[in-house]
Amino acid sequence: MENIKERTTNVITPNQFLEHWQGHRRLTRKVIEAFPEDQLFNYSVGGMRPFADMVMELLGIAEPGLREIVMGETTQLKEHFDHGNSKAKLLEAWDSATEQLNKLWAQMEEMDFQKQIVSFGQFPGTVQSSLFYFLENEIHHRAQGYVYLRSLGIEPPMFYDRN
Amino acid sequence: MENIKERTTNVITPNQFLEHWQGHRRLTRKVIEAFPEDQLFNYSVGGMRPFADMVMELLGIAEPGLREIVMGETTQLKEHFDHGNSKAKLLEAWDSATEQLNKLWAQMEEMDFQKQIVSFGQFPGTVQSSLFYFLENEIHHRAQGYVYLRSLGIEPPMFYDRN
Repeated sequence: MENIKERTTNVITPNQFLEHWQGHRRLTRKVIEAFPEDQLFNYSVGGMRPFADMVMELLGIAEPGLREIVMGETTQLKEHFDHGNSKAKLLEAWDSATEQLNKLWAQMEEMDFQKQIVSFGQFPGTVQSSLFYFLENEIHHRAQGYVYLRSLGIEPPMFYDRN
Repeated sequence: MENIKERTTNVITPNQFLEHWQGHRRLTRKVIEAFPEDQLFNYSVGGMRPFADMVMELLGIAEPGLREIVMGETTQLKEHFDHGNSKAKLLEAWDSATEQLNKLWAQMEEMDFQKQIVSFGQFPGTVQSSLFYFLENEIHHRAQGYVYLRSLGIEPPMFYDRN
């Protein structure tokens, strides 16, 4: 019985979390695609960063952050890479991270999600709180991309579209 | 051993989820507070809704949605109430929901988060997927409020400020 109770009180299983995260990443990919290339790298509202800069931040967090959790080796936060203002290059990096996240997640089976860690050598928390931060920071910045798109007269993908 | 493994693979415990959700709700409350009253109800970017309308959606989802999960009785999605364009009234509703969520969550102890449900009589999913939707939809709309604030020249609270 004890074991059954433990199972039913698991809010979300590790595999569900990965699938949920990748679903959000599929949506973010669609938001990147929805931007005209020029606006992706240059347009912004309210003095904020262009959406491509936010996407580079997300790329700098997801795969390196999960690798740090899996490998246990401190990594540096790197929010820039040479994309040459190319949407294709940004999407390529996105797709590469998608594959890498799946591979890294295969090593999460025995993970203690409550373990204390320091992400990127500077953000203390647990595996759980770090993963939620990675996911939610993406939702946060993607939603800002939604406003950019709307103000460009472009209809963004539906928030619940995760296919 | 079986039981220990089950425990360590719990990505987030029910109590952690509530605390995490309420942390986000504290941040959203600060975003509401950061808006000048007039702009809260009237300002928007890109033809989107004013932030107060988004807040009413969030209020229409969180407490009624959790009550539906706990009680198992179908509820209607109601995204409007008479706020009389008063920020104080909106914050009062927010604080009331905060208390109600805590009370309702006390009844979630035996909840099967994988149980199939239909939220608001129209959104099929599980308890888990519904709760994540409630939380993430708030992050999504709050981030749009961030852009509104920035474009008004107002510095929003830090994304990681959950106190």
